[in-house]
Amino acid sequence: MTQKNKAYVKLEDLFKKKSVLAGASAILHWDNAVMMPDGGAAARAEQLATLGLLTHEIISSTEVSDLLDEAEESISLLSEWEAANLREMRHEWRHENSLKSDLVEAMSLATSKCELTWRQAREDSDFSLLQEELGEVVRLNQQMAKAKTEIFGCSAYDALLDQFEPGCKSADIDILFKDLQDFLPGFLDQVLDKQSVYEVSQPEGPFSVEVQQELGLEFMKALTFDFDRGRLDVSHHPFTGGIPDDVRLTTRYVTTDFTQSLMGTLHETGHALYEQNLPAEWRHQPVGDARGMAMHESQSLLIEMQLSRGKEFLSYALPLIRKAFKGEGEDWSDLNLTRLYHKVERGFIRVDADEVTYPLHVILRYRLEQALLSGDLLVKDLPAAWNDGMKELLGITPPNDALGCLQDIHWPGGAIGYFPTYTLGAMAAAQIFEAAGHALPDLKQQITAGEFTPLITWLKKHIHEKASLKSTNGMLEEATGSELKVDAFKKHLVNRYLKS
Amino acid sequence: MTQKNKAYVKLEDLFKKKSVLAGASAILHWDNAVMMPDGGAAARAEQLATLGLLTHEIISSTEVSDLLDEAEESISLLSEWEAANLREMRHEWRHENSLKSDLVEAMSLATSKCELTWRQAREDSDFSLLQEELGEVVRLNQQMAKAKTEIFGCSAYDALLDQFEPGCKSADIDILFKDLQDFLPGFLDQVLDKQSVYEVSQPEGPFSVEVQQELGLEFMKALTFDFDRGRLDVSHHPFTGGIPDDVRLTTRYVTTDFTQSLMGTLHETGHALYEQNLPAEWRHQPVGDARGMAMHESQSLLIEMQLSRGKEFLSYALPLIRKAFKGEGEDWSDLNLTRLYHKVERGFIRVDADEVTYPLHVILRYRLEQALLSGDLLVKDLPAAWNDGMKELLGITPPNDALGCLQDIHWPGGAIGYFPTYTLGAMAAAQIFEAAGHALPDLKQQITAGEFTPLITWLKKHIHEKASLKSTNGMLEEATGSELKVDAFKKHLVNRYLKS
Repeated sequence: MTQKNKAYVKLEDLFKKKSVLAGASAILHWDNAVMMPDGGAAARAEQLATLGLLTHEIISSTEVSDLLDEAEESISLLSEWEAANLREMRHEWRHENSLKSDLVEAMSLATSKCELTWRQAREDSDFSLLQEELGEVVRLNQQMAKAKTEIFGCSAYDALLDQFEPGCKSADIDILFKDLQDFLPGFLDQVLDKQSVYEVSQPEGPFSVEVQQELGLEFMKALTFDFDRGRLDVSHHPFTGGIPDDVRLTTRYVTTDFTQSLMGTLHETGHALYEQNLPAEWRHQPVGDARGMAMHESQSLLIEMQLSRGKEFLSYALPLIRKAFKGEGEDWSDLNLTRLYHKVERGFIRVDADEVTYPLHVILRYRLEQALLSGDLLVKDLPAAWNDGMKELLGITPPNDALGCLQDIHWPGGAIGYFPTYTLGAMAAAQIFEAAGHALPDLKQQITAGEFTPLITWLKKHIHEKASLKSTNGMLEEATGSELKVDAFKKHLVNRYLKS
Repeated sequence: MTQKNKAYVKLEDLFKKKSVLAGASAILHWDNAVMMPDGGAAARAEQLATLGLLTHEIISSTEVSDLLDEAEESISLLSEWEAANLREMRHEWRHENSLKSDLVEAMSLATSKCELTWRQAREDSDFSLLQEELGEVVRLNQQMAKAKTEIFGCSAYDALLDQFEPGCKSADIDILFKDLQDFLPGFLDQVLDKQSVYEVSQPEGPFSVEVQQELGLEFMKALTFDFDRGRLDVSHHPFTGGIPDDVRLTTRYVTTDFTQSLMGTLHETGHALYEQNLPAEWRHQPVGDARGMAMHESQSLLIEMQLSRGKEFLSYALPLIRKAFKGEGEDWSDLNLTRLYHKVERGFIRVDADEVTYPLHVILRYRLEQALLSGDLLVKDLPAAWNDGMKELLGITPPNDALGCLQDIHWPGGAIGYFPTYTLGAMAAAQIFEAAGHALPDLKQQITAGEFTPLITWLKKHIHEKASLKSTNGMLEEATGSELKVDAFKKHLVNRYLKS
């Protein structure tokens, strides 16, 4: 028998226990957003806080610390995946160990409460309702970041960023975002000019929620979503939650416009496929988790933006859409619907934004959350700073806070350092889809025919199944031949919005 | 400052933590039955097992044991409710401490698995699918009972019974059930004779699920159910789950018959009101929990059988039902619908049984589960024994196991010792409703007018808010003037089925 790294084996047990409890939390978090009556909120917050504390205590225990030291001494006994798992365990331990239990519990309670208040504040478009509780969440994030900077030896913002996109530094983001900022304004003007010469009309509703849902389910099925291991529901803010063997997608429907819910569903399906295709043999281990939020977003945007808004997909999907809604006439022509799906405009809402203006929404939030964290921006001044930033970056000023700084759940939910991953994901999506196109010479014909298995199989092999074996850039290099760059994304934008 | 029972205060913290985790499990258990896709079952079973183990470990710890000893020494420092809480803590500790962690975990995994298999076995009416896994659940129950008999100094069956109905002994049940068995067969013949002289017709469907659901929601609202702290959904086997501030009711709809889902919803509403009206100031403490399953069932049966099938409630409800389904003609007359709701017959399915034959279904299960536990009956012989018992008690033989021993989730779910509480509850319901009638002289007129607040307020004061302060019989004595007897139940049956 071969020698065993016994400490590592014990670590696998402990991390599995933590993952199982985190999975329970994930389902409860989904229930919060989709099922729970308001009166259950206080009890649910206690449940999530208690579970969060338990998972924190498992990982930050002295036992785990000792086992990590011991396992790392015998790392040579481990396979490539096991060694990567140990590396990820150490990374997770560093994050958990940087925080005292009372801070973890306080954060969980504060964010549960603040998320609930946010719903009301957004509904009433009243920032004053949220101000105090958001202030508390920011303060707790500042404490958390301070504790982490000492462990990770980096800036406060980078310490938070590392939770969502391990290894990523704001210095790297600054370079990528500067490239985009240099490119986008001029490009946006060109696109708006080009689009100004024709009218796009919105097909007239109402569009029944049932039909929208059925269409969404049909596309999910075509994209190989496994309904035995997941489901689609409705929530205020669409998200993909749950666990790999029970993925919970949500979307939202409006009866005046079917395009939002459909593309929303396709977006979440991209996230969901990543989760469902994670390697079952590494379930419940850190190396078996998705790589990070940038890579996660790359998978949703690959499906939504690269694939589903492309002309090949539309030529497959538009007839199905027309049939489902019994659409006839000019509004429902391929030309008009394609223009609708490619429409670019300076809008207020990030989740409704097109892929050209989206990065500008992200850059705004990236700036503001850095300023909130450093204290340069006070929570009370957020609405004004938001509106100023919108004016500068997008040239428009939100008429109220519901269309401004109250639109996103992220900060009330405690996630500072998350927003940049959306645009890193958009870049990665373009780069990966380009590589898939090179690897699969018949890809365009397959998409036109509604055959998505070759694409998803390629993604599964090169991205999904790799889980956290490599770094984000390491995985991108293997899959695409290069670390993350802006080039493919810019090329894609030019091709879709200026050349077609 | 007054002296404090410091050990007791620490116990409150620990039991709260346990209760919060148990609440998380309760929501996940509801999700299992209502939302979860099949592929999520294995992961969910792990979640529930891990949570079950954690709650077990909290209560059975040496720390709790020491604290209980210490707190009991200073019990004189405690208020009446605190002292009762300490008594309930000790009781819970005895149950948890009787079991080793590996048995708790094995039971949780085995029952999660067995419940899932049961769904399939029932659908296929194939007992052989279930036999092995049910055998494992029975074996684990035997181990569990053996461990408990040593702690509680009682028989194996009584040790399991005590989990669901604390303090209840099979010797007491035997006396009550013998009284029923002496009474019911002759009474059933009389009722069937009386009902044989007229025809009852079932109004013709289909009855849309939406309308059935709306009616159910309307009655729930009239009965003061708080929708801010609960919701109604659909599952295979109706149940009331969740937690007091987030009660999750389920029912099931068939489009050929609206009466089942309506009465099912009313039944679960009785359970739900008990949970919602538990004292908020004792939330998360053992004394704040519902008294036991007999008392819980008394509340569901009080609403379903005593209240909702009574002529006063029907005179309020039948016009609403006719209006909702646009029912016209003889089938929809007060007389026919009342006869439909009072119809007695020898049927196969317990949950569809009328209140006259229901106790016979329970007596069958009570006998069989005692025999399964003692080993006198082997799991493989269960279908035959079931059918023999049905023949003896009800005079009919199920044509297949779906209509026989596969109909209930209880044994696959690990609950042996639960069934008798249904009939104990039926007796208690009659006794409590009779007392409410004496206390509220205008009760009949109020019910006829659809005013249920006086009744629910009385129940809240005398039953719901008492939680676990007293024993079941102690609470019954205070509320009704007598411990549990068969008299009120028999009187009720005679009045409804022979005299009206």
